[in-house]
Amino acid sequence: MSQNQPENHTIDLAVSARWIVPVVPRGRVLEFCSLLINDDCIVGICPQAEIGKRYHAQQHLQLADSVLLPGLINAHGHAPMTLLRGYADDLPLESWLNNYIWPTEQRWVSPEFVADGSELAIAEMLQSGTTCFSDMYFFPESTAEVCHKAGMRAQLNFPVFEFANAWADSADDCIHKGLSLRDELRSNPLLSFAFGPHAPYTVSDATFRKIATYLAELQMPMHIHLHETAQEVADSIKEHGERPIERLAKLDLLGPLTQCVHFTQVTSQDIELLQTWQSSVIHCPHSNLKLASGFTPVQKLLNANVRVALGTDGAASNNSLNMFSEMKTAALLAKTLAERADACPAESALEMATIKGAEALGLEALIGSLEPGKQADFIAVDMSHADMQPVYDVVSQLVYGAAASRVSHVWIAGRPLLENNRLLSLDAQALKQKAQLWQQKITQR
Amino acid sequence: MSQNQPENHTIDLAVSARWIVPVVPRGRVLEFCSLLINDDCIVGICPQAEIGKRYHAQQHLQLADSVLLPGLINAHGHAPMTLLRGYADDLPLESWLNNYIWPTEQRWVSPEFVADGSELAIAEMLQSGTTCFSDMYFFPESTAEVCHKAGMRAQLNFPVFEFANAWADSADDCIHKGLSLRDELRSNPLLSFAFGPHAPYTVSDATFRKIATYLAELQMPMHIHLHETAQEVADSIKEHGERPIERLAKLDLLGPLTQCVHFTQVTSQDIELLQTWQSSVIHCPHSNLKLASGFTPVQKLLNANVRVALGTDGAASNNSLNMFSEMKTAALLAKTLAERADACPAESALEMATIKGAEALGLEALIGSLEPGKQADFIAVDMSHADMQPVYDVVSQLVYGAAASRVSHVWIAGRPLLENNRLLSLDAQALKQKAQLWQQKITQR
Repeated sequence: MSQNQPENHTIDLAVSARWIVPVVPRGRVLEFCSLLINDDCIVGICPQAEIGKRYHAQQHLQLADSVLLPGLINAHGHAPMTLLRGYADDLPLESWLNNYIWPTEQRWVSPEFVADGSELAIAEMLQSGTTCFSDMYFFPESTAEVCHKAGMRAQLNFPVFEFANAWADSADDCIHKGLSLRDELRSNPLLSFAFGPHAPYTVSDATFRKIATYLAELQMPMHIHLHETAQEVADSIKEHGERPIERLAKLDLLGPLTQCVHFTQVTSQDIELLQTWQSSVIHCPHSNLKLASGFTPVQKLLNANVRVALGTDGAASNNSLNMFSEMKTAALLAKTLAERADACPAESALEMATIKGAEALGLEALIGSLEPGKQADFIAVDMSHADMQPVYDVVSQLVYGAAASRVSHVWIAGRPLLENNRLLSLDAQALKQKAQLWQQKITQR
Repeated sequence: MSQNQPENHTIDLAVSARWIVPVVPRGRVLEFCSLLINDDCIVGICPQAEIGKRYHAQQHLQLADSVLLPGLINAHGHAPMTLLRGYADDLPLESWLNNYIWPTEQRWVSPEFVADGSELAIAEMLQSGTTCFSDMYFFPESTAEVCHKAGMRAQLNFPVFEFANAWADSADDCIHKGLSLRDELRSNPLLSFAFGPHAPYTVSDATFRKIATYLAELQMPMHIHLHETAQEVADSIKEHGERPIERLAKLDLLGPLTQCVHFTQVTSQDIELLQTWQSSVIHCPHSNLKLASGFTPVQKLLNANVRVALGTDGAASNNSLNMFSEMKTAALLAKTLAERADACPAESALEMATIKGAEALGLEALIGSLEPGKQADFIAVDMSHADMQPVYDVVSQLVYGAAASRVSHVWIAGRPLLENNRLLSLDAQALKQKAQLWQQKITQR
């Protein structure tokens, strides 16, 4: 009760755990320490033995078998498409898009679809330890509303297409609506906004030039599907005489806040452009495999010091939003592609899902590691279960083990959102009913 | 209470579920039906509406949001190595084996190590829906004992090496001990035995000839690491003038019960041999990726009607024993390797983890599908969670979704072993303590 004594700082929350993996600095694993939180911020980490002497915590949570780590950052997805999870699997890419995904979106996408799909996605992401996601979809205002309700952090990439869609009439209308939304929600500390030109083949040079003008003025990130398939690259060479990333470079669209999603097709010239402009690759291994798009050469990118972050892509091409699983597959694929079992070690995979994701989104001052002054976005994983034992190397276990299903607690900006596996800001039962209603609508036409 | 009425059969158990996926026949999904069990056998499947009219079930379990399917078959592993999960990750293959795994095994492998490691593995396998595993390790008698205690089904592949090890002095001693164990446990209905010559490079032609003699006489399966790496194949060509599978063919070691584990290196001649002898490939995608061994061309094998089953390999090279995850990775990798998103659909992956595994082990009359007369080895997966909703296609969701962590119930030969996520035959708390004790021993030397 001795608040405000000089040697005894009052803080909101202390969480003591068997291990703390702060991610920065790389390789550090703290044992028997406590993470100290005040308001929405991390104020420090101290040995458990010292906590009572130096701090008065309003709440002190003891997680004796758990590891604390930064919340994971899902750097690419389409949250509302969670309503189409498993709707059209195992089809050739063209049939999947032309006969299933696009007609269904055309028929059903609405503010309600987007809100309900985003809510289902956020529930799954929170339960598997993701605390920030980067999303590209129509009606981003609906996703924003659900994020606000759920307490979720997100970068919303408002889509820009040349063709009319349910949300906007034209590319100009996309830009207008996107920028208006950004202005309107400027005061929301959990939301940031980026231009989301869908892909080089759905956006004209004229629109790209406008986007370049805005990017220079507003210092906003740009998020784009790039070099997803060999066909895309071949088509670009045919139509524009250059690879898509060369075209973006000429249009002044590359920079440290450019997020190149997928990038399965990579030449050394492509890597030079990424290096020159410090642009990021957002690697989505499950989606690339499921759509047979190709293999992103992750270790080659890491060797060239290209920033690689990870994303799940939408649930229609994955079908999970599980970032732990994405880390494992990213690390394993990188090893076989590099023909070296020591390529892309677990620590690199964990960085890709945390601090590298934060850097790619331009949010590294706020999130991506457990450091004093950063936002209190963190998760607890219970290591006591059979599938996580024994624990020789906690980072290795997090990446290669069964961590997603062992996430027990999640906080974003200091607010608890998952407690002993239970969602605090969302109603799991109502969510299931909404998902089933949409399924009935979509399949009964 | 009306037992033995002519129209009202008394049975031990009925489990009613939203969906039943029997796996055989392929593609069938039953809705609102009940699986009927008597003693250790499946006696039928009937619509839920009819169950009261035709059967008197001593116990009737209602799982309104769940799917029932055959228990998964993990066709390759080294269960005791679960005690080395994460002990030495992200190392080049040679250093991993020579500096970590082999010295540690040499120092620590004992009947107790094998028993405790097997128990930890079985706990994880049951919790993630595996009801039968094929295992190769020293002291198989210890694994057998734990299986008996746990109620787990297994094929124990007693290892055959030329060199002396903690369990046996020589290849002849391995064979003698293995066959004696088989004789001793002949009456155990859950255990079967196979020859486990470790690999072509650790077993001599003379020993292989003896094994061929026994195989012909005893009609037993043979389980062997084969074509795991390019180096193995190159070395064999150098030493024997032929690829390992050609050498096995000449030694009369191929047949329908030959289980070729890994097989990342595949020529059309290799495929012809597999076809001719109807031998099986046991594909372990995570292990092959983690050790950078290579990519098994699954769709090419399926196109050639080669039987492909799935295994996790040991936890030291995975690091999970999660067969759902193995199914997903197998299907996804197959798509990208085949450059077709419709390659290896979810149904094929599910077959590889069930009926194909049963066929590979020669157990297809007993397990691998939910058919009357087969053993009651089955599992329930709860589809009501956010990460499994909505359910357009239940098989797709099982393979590509988050099923492992949603396994709620497991039965083997009609005996319940997992009930509402709780292990019934094993003590989870004691297991954790054993795992931690071994970790301390192994790291404190």
